[in-house]
Amino acid sequence: MLEKVVLLSTGDELTTGKIADTNAQWLADRCLSLGLDVVAVLVAGDHRDRIAWAWERAFELGDLVVSTGGLGPTSDDLTTETVAEVLGEPLRFDEASAEKIRQLFARLGRVMPENNLRQAQFPKSAVILENPLGTAPGYRVTCERRLVALGARDAATVTRHLVVMPGVPREMKPMFDDQVAPWIRELRGSTDVILTRTFQTFGMSESALDEAVNAVVRPEEARLSFRASFPQISVKLLVRDQPGRAEARLAEVGQRVRAALGPVVFAEGEKTMEAAVGDALRERGATLAIAESCSGGLVGHRVTEVAGSSAYFIADYVTYTNAAKMDVLGVPRETLKEFGAVSEETARAMAEGARRRSGASVAVATTGIAGPDGGTPDKPVGTVCFALSADGMLVSRRHQLWGTRDWVKLLTSQLALDWVRRWALGLPVLESGFRR
Amino acid sequence: MLEKVVLLSTGDELTTGKIADTNAQWLADRCLSLGLDVVAVLVAGDHRDRIAWAWERAFELGDLVVSTGGLGPTSDDLTTETVAEVLGEPLRFDEASAEKIRQLFARLGRVMPENNLRQAQFPKSAVILENPLGTAPGYRVTCERRLVALGARDAATVTRHLVVMPGVPREMKPMFDDQVAPWIRELRGSTDVILTRTFQTFGMSESALDEAVNAVVRPEEARLSFRASFPQISVKLLVRDQPGRAEARLAEVGQRVRAALGPVVFAEGEKTMEAAVGDALRERGATLAIAESCSGGLVGHRVTEVAGSSAYFIADYVTYTNAAKMDVLGVPRETLKEFGAVSEETARAMAEGARRRSGASVAVATTGIAGPDGGTPDKPVGTVCFALSADGMLVSRRHQLWGTRDWVKLLTSQLALDWVRRWALGLPVLESGFRR
Repeated sequence: MLEKVVLLSTGDELTTGKIADTNAQWLADRCLSLGLDVVAVLVAGDHRDRIAWAWERAFELGDLVVSTGGLGPTSDDLTTETVAEVLGEPLRFDEASAEKIRQLFARLGRVMPENNLRQAQFPKSAVILENPLGTAPGYRVTCERRLVALGARDAATVTRHLVVMPGVPREMKPMFDDQVAPWIRELRGSTDVILTRTFQTFGMSESALDEAVNAVVRPEEARLSFRASFPQISVKLLVRDQPGRAEARLAEVGQRVRAALGPVVFAEGEKTMEAAVGDALRERGATLAIAESCSGGLVGHRVTEVAGSSAYFIADYVTYTNAAKMDVLGVPRETLKEFGAVSEETARAMAEGARRRSGASVAVATTGIAGPDGGTPDKPVGTVCFALSADGMLVSRRHQLWGTRDWVKLLTSQLALDWVRRWALGLPVLESGFRR
Repeated sequence: MLEKVVLLSTGDELTTGKIADTNAQWLADRCLSLGLDVVAVLVAGDHRDRIAWAWERAFELGDLVVSTGGLGPTSDDLTTETVAEVLGEPLRFDEASAEKIRQLFARLGRVMPENNLRQAQFPKSAVILENPLGTAPGYRVTCERRLVALGARDAATVTRHLVVMPGVPREMKPMFDDQVAPWIRELRGSTDVILTRTFQTFGMSESALDEAVNAVVRPEEARLSFRASFPQISVKLLVRDQPGRAEARLAEVGQRVRAALGPVVFAEGEKTMEAAVGDALRERGATLAIAESCSGGLVGHRVTEVAGSSAYFIADYVTYTNAAKMDVLGVPRETLKEFGAVSEETARAMAEGARRRSGASVAVATTGIAGPDGGTPDKPVGTVCFALSADGMLVSRRHQLWGTRDWVKLLTSQLALDWVRRWALGLPVLESGFRR
């Protein structure tokens, strides 16, 4: 029975505050998808006795221990010799692995330091996991141990599986997905497949999403999880079933979820809002201009994070002063005087000016008070006005946002991008928004 | 003797991959500054037996256990009752804490759910740590335990200290700094103070910094640590000595480090490059305009992350197309035709156009190939040209940057900001740059 997992992260960089343990986060998410229960995460610095302690304790808790880090070539990389010691196994030198390391150095035209060959050593019973992206292979071992497991009264002989991988995320992640996950599925002895589908949403609170999705998905059909990385929240469906049946059910349930959430879903998988905007603009054959005040360039920055955005993005006019708004965007002096820089009237003039000046199909404009200063009783910090101009269309709305300066800027950029996405898809723009 | 610390993080959000354990990272850094050694980090989900296991194990390893999380009001918040059980102590209800929680709800005009009073319960011997920012107070306990410590052969009675804090970072951090750190210093029984000074640098590699700083700082004078959060690297000096002596030594050693590193230090403490740019512009009484192509708005976005940037920032012209460069910035068609959009000539015309149009004291311009497509043998991906225009000054330089699209954009924005900073401080602009 393989059910409980312990994640074991090794490295002084984790115990001295240099980096956060993002490997454990990533692996915990993967384990959840595999139907495993992460019982604990243990982090140890580069000390042999502490690493050994962590392995001994991990065996008490988990059927499976997944370790990252401590496989480097230097003398403070102690994982493999400590694991061998804990297992009571000698090390063996693997000539095939050594040859791959030598070749990697040769390809880079560099001389291999002799200590890199430490990375070709493994506990005797290890099955090697290849690392196409680096010099440190991983490995896995299955062993029998006599111990008192958590929750048990007496010592017993139990089977323990262990996986050892390098700590570099770009080497570790494909190693897990390509070599470890299939092995875990096999070990779990089920021919079931586990499939997931993720919807990226913007505009509903987590509790509203929870309610809407639960209304159309029965618990036995799919497992649901929500993850807020504000201003967006992802909804993940997890289906476990026989091949064929799983795909069909996921498609069917996913269909219902999309229908229930409607335009609040802006993308699937890991796609960002700015990439969804790009797709929608390309699809429509449209070009984009931006006029920003309070968001200060963030909307343009996000749009240009997408490779190939030069196909639809023309210009972003970041006009922070009134003079720049008049000069570059032709906002009338009277509009600024009568309604103020933070007004729907000014936002509309900015959007129209940006579209006129650039010749773009659509232009979106933002103007507001990012704070922490500059608020008034009438227009408190977080007041932001939006406008969108396109052929035969000019809309605007005032929103009351909240939070610190960077937060107001981020929310502003998210709304502006969602307006453009909705326009490009022919959806009602003014329905964009969100509740706290 | 208080030397070894275990960090214990509790919460299902950590064992299901919802969030990374950034509290542990922050605390590990703080512990290092206090002269403590973080022996392990243990993470447990919201299960009573697993939390109890983690506490028992933590006592084996650490003189001090610092716990975060599991202090919420709901039934899956199990830290306090589990700690009381592990300590063998009853819970006591603290009326003063309960009253504060009631008042907090009253201030927010909300009805207090009855279960919030769970947060006014503490193990009997606990000393309460106030939480001015939330409903969950923390607490600390000192106890005697009989156990086999790591590295010991036999059971012995040892003193253990424990600190329990809420998991919300904005509540936990001030609680640690204001109430826990002073107590730890006192416990350590030394009248020494530990002082730190951090320099933010841009333009030297970690190894070059290491060499330069070590040439002027002897190991017994101060402890050094480097942290790369590319494109910048911080250099931290840590001095431990008697009050008065410590301040004097830190000032003296810091002086030497600043002199050795020169303009590569752009700020001290946690200050960002964009804030340093703002300070330098204010100091000079100058205003800023920006002209961006490949960086797509990121320079403007960073400048406007600083509160009060409207005092010096006028406008950012993000001209992605040639047409926009000609229209908004007046870049001559012949310049674009003869040298291309990615050229020092175009960058110069962009900077001059931005300054002319805005009336700003200084304008900086970027134009390049962010990738992944668009490179040529002559101008590969990562080629970026910069220019700066100011009264009586026009300079430009071509840089070859590297990495993915977002990376090239980030490096571009960093160089552009550093140019403005150097100009405002009267430093040689063209010496800005960095080695890999």
